[in-house]
Amino acid sequence: MERILVRDLSKYVGQEVKMQGWAFRIRRLSNVNFILLRDRTGQIQISLSPELLEDIHLTTESIIELHGVVATEPRAPGGFEVAASGIEIINPADNLPININVPKLNVALDTALDHRVLSLRHGKINPIFKNQSALVHGFQEFLNGQDFTQVFTPKIVSGGTEGGTELFAVEYFEEKAYLAQSPQFYKQMMVGAGYERVYEVGHVYRAEKHDTSRHLNEYVSLDLEMGFIENEHEVMDLQNRLLSHMFEYVNEKCSKELALLGVTLPEVPDIPRIPLLEAIELLEKEYGKKHYQPDLDPEGERLLSKYFLEKQGSEFVFVIDYPMSKRPMYTMPKGEDLTGSFDLLFRGLEITTGGQRIHTYDLLAENMRKKGLNPEDFISYLDNFAHGMPPHGGLAIGLERLTAQILGLSNVREACLFPRDRNRLTP
Amino acid sequence: MERILVRDLSKYVGQEVKMQGWAFRIRRLSNVNFILLRDRTGQIQISLSPELLEDIHLTTESIIELHGVVATEPRAPGGFEVAASGIEIINPADNLPININVPKLNVALDTALDHRVLSLRHGKINPIFKNQSALVHGFQEFLNGQDFTQVFTPKIVSGGTEGGTELFAVEYFEEKAYLAQSPQFYKQMMVGAGYERVYEVGHVYRAEKHDTSRHLNEYVSLDLEMGFIENEHEVMDLQNRLLSHMFEYVNEKCSKELALLGVTLPEVPDIPRIPLLEAIELLEKEYGKKHYQPDLDPEGERLLSKYFLEKQGSEFVFVIDYPMSKRPMYTMPKGEDLTGSFDLLFRGLEITTGGQRIHTYDLLAENMRKKGLNPEDFISYLDNFAHGMPPHGGLAIGLERLTAQILGLSNVREACLFPRDRNRLTP
Repeated sequence: MERILVRDLSKYVGQEVKMQGWAFRIRRLSNVNFILLRDRTGQIQISLSPELLEDIHLTTESIIELHGVVATEPRAPGGFEVAASGIEIINPADNLPININVPKLNVALDTALDHRVLSLRHGKINPIFKNQSALVHGFQEFLNGQDFTQVFTPKIVSGGTEGGTELFAVEYFEEKAYLAQSPQFYKQMMVGAGYERVYEVGHVYRAEKHDTSRHLNEYVSLDLEMGFIENEHEVMDLQNRLLSHMFEYVNEKCSKELALLGVTLPEVPDIPRIPLLEAIELLEKEYGKKHYQPDLDPEGERLLSKYFLEKQGSEFVFVIDYPMSKRPMYTMPKGEDLTGSFDLLFRGLEITTGGQRIHTYDLLAENMRKKGLNPEDFISYLDNFAHGMPPHGGLAIGLERLTAQILGLSNVREACLFPRDRNRLTP
Repeated sequence: MERILVRDLSKYVGQEVKMQGWAFRIRRLSNVNFILLRDRTGQIQISLSPELLEDIHLTTESIIELHGVVATEPRAPGGFEVAASGIEIINPADNLPININVPKLNVALDTALDHRVLSLRHGKINPIFKNQSALVHGFQEFLNGQDFTQVFTPKIVSGGTEGGTELFAVEYFEEKAYLAQSPQFYKQMMVGAGYERVYEVGHVYRAEKHDTSRHLNEYVSLDLEMGFIENEHEVMDLQNRLLSHMFEYVNEKCSKELALLGVTLPEVPDIPRIPLLEAIELLEKEYGKKHYQPDLDPEGERLLSKYFLEKQGSEFVFVIDYPMSKRPMYTMPKGEDLTGSFDLLFRGLEITTGGQRIHTYDLLAENMRKKGLNPEDFISYLDNFAHGMPPHGGLAIGLERLTAQILGLSNVREACLFPRDRNRLTP
């Protein structure tokens, strides 16, 4: 007999079905018992005569199989009920370290992460990663349709993309190697290899020692790079359409999971673009907020988002034209000392960094020297710029940050299945 | 003026277009010059009057932009030609270390890998990774349609899945960590976390010291795991349909790229399944091939594939029921000392390992001890089996091996953009 899933029960009213799942909730009354059975598609109320539970020791979260007849039952959650004629425990659960049978999981985040398999079963946590999965599919589907090639580039590398800070070292046979901070060099190289448009969904590593609610030491980067652009605005145009598609995709594919979290994803507008220096002036004028560096601090990001939401109704804003001093050596210069670069803020947090890159050998070598780097150290990257490299640009979206922001999670760890940080290496 | 791609030229016959790409081939005759321009979609012959090239130093592989009128030209490759009215060098190329303007790239694989951006532009190499990209989309699309959730699990881990051999060590702040050999534990945990069906496309790491044409130290694993199965045959059934979909997808989406390589992907039949011990007997009887271990060596894999191709017309064969001594501790026992496990051979090479896993705490702990492992070392994995774990199984496909086998590449490195092996850490 085939297993029937909760979401398909409406097709089986009056028929006997076999169901399998977790015994989420067990309620024993004098003349009837109820179990809420949970599977990957939902929950269903099961009614059983007390005799059926007499000879078995059923505990919550045990894996059970049952047979019964499906009935409409207006009083049951979902409108259906299964009257069980038999039940079997497939794998018992016991000594649960946390109780997930509560409307809100009221344990510290660290405790929830310690017991991740259990906390992920909670109705407010499980949907996070179905939404995340759909966000990634939306990203992949849109870019596949735009002629992008999905690539997989190495995470074990011989050096950093920005000169060697914040790298995790790997013992690679007899050599010292590092974990890649980003696929930056490789995705640029793949543009030059003739693919022109590439994307990668992969882990990146930052050995940052600080431990904040916005940082992970290992995270998933949604990276893309595209050739034959005129300027960085083409990359922003693409991201505007990309995000629009991703949000629509999640709204469509995960309406149930979004509803469980009480979230609807916003329509993505034509995202406004403001030069960084104008943004800094504006923040001082509007909020008396001072920046002593040509960059936005977290409070500045929040205030700028607040401003654009209130004045233009946009939850997004591109901050553009960062000074060269704040950008990596491969960033395309623009005018005196600015660059063709951008950050995208969403609801007060930076979720993307991007821009046009330098595509000529001489300018790239010169910019390395200006940044105090030795072009000799970057030969296997730099040489490609003398072998036919088109103008190009790209961006990177932090998957966990984006997930956290769209779902209203206050800590980026909540949007990572198994976060890695200064203090956490397990489970 | 908008850039027009080679594949779209047929829509512009008689019109002026702007084109951008690489100057793949330059031929100077007395009264006319020809350039083959290459972009991500193909190649087109450009005719130019010699005056247009008089004042510029055009070299092969330079990035160029040109304007001209599209004409049908039966003698030109593809049937079209563009008569250029203007040409500009966007980024010159010079001192190319290898010549890619040849029908077959006749340099050693190591040289091709040293100059990867150039070698990837070659017409017989570039399509490899478009096919690979499509293989992955086919994998993702099929599993998305089967209710699987795409997950991203950590690659920095505190220990190995099989007891600590062949791990790359990472300096993780003050702690010793390792690069994950496989997402095995995590994908099982995600089944138990309520997702039931998960897949991951991600890097895995094997610090194997041997350097063969079949091994990479960093490779992409297409992993999946599914809950509520009866036995390992359900996993094989799924893989049969999965491969069928992937191959059809690539045949459809990459017909041009397959044609460039002279390849058509075979229809996937109902794949035969043979117990390992029977396979070993068969090889001895048919070919006088002896195995002194209950396992197939590379020659045994080749001979068994040959047998099934000749006798049953199948390029695939599942070898099933491996003895427990040859399988990891999480493998489901079957009968006296066999397991519910399988390998999939394709054209003489193992491309998948899979099977049913143990889902009960006591059996798993016992099996760890039998294998000489201490259950205490696996607490954050093992505990989950006492908290409601459904019966489950899964598999892993090595992406580069699969790519190499379907495209007829003799070394798995040819199916990896930037291979990492004992002797290679760059580019």
